[in-house]
Amino acid sequence: MGSLHQFENKSVSPIKPLDSEEFRRQGHLIIDFIADYYKNSERYPVRSQVEPGYLRKQLPESAPYNPEPIETILKDVEEHIVPGITHWQSPNYFAYFPSSGSTAGFLGEMLCSGFNVVGFNWVSSPAATELENIVMDWLGEMLKLPKSFLFSGNGGGVIQGTTCEAILCTIAAARDQTLRKIGTENIGKLVVYGSDQTHSALQKAAHIAGINPKNFRAIKTSKSSSFCLSPDSLQETIGSDIEDGLIPLFLCATIGTTGITAVDPLQQLGDVAKRYGIWVHIDAAYAGSACICPEFRHFLDGIENADSFSFNAHKWFFTNLDCCCLWVKNPNALIQALSTNPEFLRNKASDSKEVVDYKDWQITLSRRFRALKLWLVLRSYGVVNLRKFLRSHVKMAKVFEELVGSDKRFEIVAPRYFSMVCFRVSPSVLFKTNKYENGKANNDVEKVEKSNEVTENLLQKINASGKAYMSHAIVGGMYVIRFAIGASLTEDHHVTAAWKVVQQHLDAILN
Amino acid sequence: MGSLHQFENKSVSPIKPLDSEEFRRQGHLIIDFIADYYKNSERYPVRSQVEPGYLRKQLPESAPYNPEPIETILKDVEEHIVPGITHWQSPNYFAYFPSSGSTAGFLGEMLCSGFNVVGFNWVSSPAATELENIVMDWLGEMLKLPKSFLFSGNGGGVIQGTTCEAILCTIAAARDQTLRKIGTENIGKLVVYGSDQTHSALQKAAHIAGINPKNFRAIKTSKSSSFCLSPDSLQETIGSDIEDGLIPLFLCATIGTTGITAVDPLQQLGDVAKRYGIWVHIDAAYAGSACICPEFRHFLDGIENADSFSFNAHKWFFTNLDCCCLWVKNPNALIQALSTNPEFLRNKASDSKEVVDYKDWQITLSRRFRALKLWLVLRSYGVVNLRKFLRSHVKMAKVFEELVGSDKRFEIVAPRYFSMVCFRVSPSVLFKTNKYENGKANNDVEKVEKSNEVTENLLQKINASGKAYMSHAIVGGMYVIRFAIGASLTEDHHVTAAWKVVQQHLDAILN
Repeated sequence: MGSLHQFENKSVSPIKPLDSEEFRRQGHLIIDFIADYYKNSERYPVRSQVEPGYLRKQLPESAPYNPEPIETILKDVEEHIVPGITHWQSPNYFAYFPSSGSTAGFLGEMLCSGFNVVGFNWVSSPAATELENIVMDWLGEMLKLPKSFLFSGNGGGVIQGTTCEAILCTIAAARDQTLRKIGTENIGKLVVYGSDQTHSALQKAAHIAGINPKNFRAIKTSKSSSFCLSPDSLQETIGSDIEDGLIPLFLCATIGTTGITAVDPLQQLGDVAKRYGIWVHIDAAYAGSACICPEFRHFLDGIENADSFSFNAHKWFFTNLDCCCLWVKNPNALIQALSTNPEFLRNKASDSKEVVDYKDWQITLSRRFRALKLWLVLRSYGVVNLRKFLRSHVKMAKVFEELVGSDKRFEIVAPRYFSMVCFRVSPSVLFKTNKYENGKANNDVEKVEKSNEVTENLLQKINASGKAYMSHAIVGGMYVIRFAIGASLTEDHHVTAAWKVVQQHLDAILN
Repeated sequence: MGSLHQFENKSVSPIKPLDSEEFRRQGHLIIDFIADYYKNSERYPVRSQVEPGYLRKQLPESAPYNPEPIETILKDVEEHIVPGITHWQSPNYFAYFPSSGSTAGFLGEMLCSGFNVVGFNWVSSPAATELENIVMDWLGEMLKLPKSFLFSGNGGGVIQGTTCEAILCTIAAARDQTLRKIGTENIGKLVVYGSDQTHSALQKAAHIAGINPKNFRAIKTSKSSSFCLSPDSLQETIGSDIEDGLIPLFLCATIGTTGITAVDPLQQLGDVAKRYGIWVHIDAAYAGSACICPEFRHFLDGIENADSFSFNAHKWFFTNLDCCCLWVKNPNALIQALSTNPEFLRNKASDSKEVVDYKDWQITLSRRFRALKLWLVLRSYGVVNLRKFLRSHVKMAKVFEELVGSDKRFEIVAPRYFSMVCFRVSPSVLFKTNKYENGKANNDVEKVEKSNEVTENLLQKINASGKAYMSHAIVGGMYVIRFAIGASLTEDHHVTAAWKVVQQHLDAILN
């Protein structure tokens, strides 16, 4: 940090918070800074190597009294912030799910932040609402969603920040719809269903919405059914809840679970849910994007039975964080749960009911003009390139899958449907190597434990190398490495290089 | 829109979503576009003049199949989006509360969006968490918050999107803290308190959190006490609830209410709340900013009694949307209500408990690196300029207040504490003018109705002129015009010009 006093003289000249020429000068500086960052993104260790508490030692204890020039601040970003960043935009980033930024997504964010409108209702900035209506219909069509999810079919889409918000809003809508029939005093009887592979967002949202924590069901899945939620298990669980006097409320089915991208059987789950009037939400946070390609669309078959559907354009759709796209068949259910009508927001357009007021479709009142970035992404790349990008990632994943398959020391753990490969060090192979063969009877439990230990060790070494970043899951007791392709800068050679890193580190461990 | 086919040829050349040189080229284009927008911001009618449905007529029905160049898209932004925007950044914007963007806030957003990290926990990008810890402590110190709200005092701050989220999180924390003592089955007995001036965010958050809608109390305020929440009324309401077997849970007190910037008496309200173990949240969404100036800090006196405090840096603190700063004394209460520990996020740093994992302090898992923009704002302007900016707005508001006071046709409706002036057309004067004098007995109700009618009519004419944009509130039955200063481009002459617009339109109405 520059001395806090060296710029004291500057503070007497009038600084304006939004002088257009100073904005221009500094804006160009930052564009170059970020462009250079992308250009050099491979130079940095992918996962940050800092230790907890590193930053407090480097920054002053208090905010500066006097202003500091942008050049000083940028130098600090370079020296103190960049080393503390895990580089989600690195081509060698394969952890969690991607956060696929793009030029168009970034520019859309700039326009959003530049106009800086607060689009809580239509009148507060009509374009913010109307463009969102339009792009959500465009995108819904690209995904071939049933017409009933589109504005043109009396449903509608809304951009939320994240899936957590989308699920919380739909649970609140379902909850209120049911409580209107059975009375608010019965909130303690409502039950929410998912599988043990469903994202933790579901449990958290149910909890926030006041669902009794005892009434959250994470139905067990198994390797034999590829970790999908079984309709029979759902039926059974519901039956038992009803016997106990509880009331089934909400089911979240997933297309591409976080752990291993399992795909729940929408059609059959929907059939079960329908019998009990359960609200069905489909969470396709990561994999939804792929469904704009005809060859992947079948994963959404059965969506007709659902009440709501969401995917995160900020994951694998080149739209910078945050942008969760949620569609509902019955916007009124959302609105009845989430609307407020304070006097200070009353206006002719809202009173006329001719417009959408998105404040009533989400948790928050204030909202950013996120539709701009989605619009820019759709237009800058067009359907043709978006499909190309997604397919290229899937192709890379196939190549990686083949590489894993060709090395007998590894095992693919679950079917690869999209751009993520889940693998582990094979238990059977481990017990053939000298290091781990020690004459004991090798029972299955022991084998799995050994595989888990070696796989975890391997992952830690890979990530500590800084050459690639991957993450893990535990499914059916197996520790697996998740290799998720989708960073916008990743090319074929990054994937093969990452595979070499995996092999080299296993070599080192086994020898 | 350009023809969807004219660029078909381009689509065969390989488009990359994040090519650094293309990013640089397009980024510079957008910087100039936005800088020009600020430069010309006075040219546009402040409130958009479009009619509902205007945009669908201008955009194609589907997303383009082929890519379109940024130049075409920017032309469409200019032609189709800008007319549909209500210009919150215009110097003539005085509606709602400000959305005070700044160069530093914008640059911070760019860096956030450029790095595009997903900082759900420490390891996912240590700098994102640690910088947030630091700036929240810096800002807490600037506001002279009790040490117990800072990390350095075992409390802590977190950046949320909006006040709605901040309140929802704190209600969930309070709810769970109480339910752990009294049992989940008693959720239907919990009561949430605010005044009839409290932001609708409170009622909505309570509702989302599963608080029985019948147990939300909007305690009546009156003109005689400047629309503050009376501690006596609170005491009385609580007493009556307890008699009915209900359990007081949560109080939201406000510094600077949305309607007329009333200031609730924190000290006495806190004393009442303490007697019943009620969680006290202080919402200073707009006015909190001012409290970094020593002369305004007294508005926070009594904050020692509170459990949580929030203000929106995106309102009147030059930090682009969205950035709500929330501090709590007991982070554990938040964490117990909001934490999830899915396996895929497990890591050494989190297990060690040495780090903050902000996913457990908020509704959502994914989170943007918002601390960057707050950091840039604090450093680019320094405490000295931030105070200067805020004081200049307050000074402008004083001038406006004097102008209103000097025209006998108007009446200031509530004390002006900050940068907002609330006024209406004076009932007594109206009945002296020819147009409205019609020989009837002018009782008080009739007078108020007439004033309301003329004031509303006046506001509509002002806003339709496009020369300035103001908004309204209804308090104690009075329709009032809210004139909120805080747009970053507003200077003295814009305020005097806006006043002339007000006068001219009243002239036209009365003659």
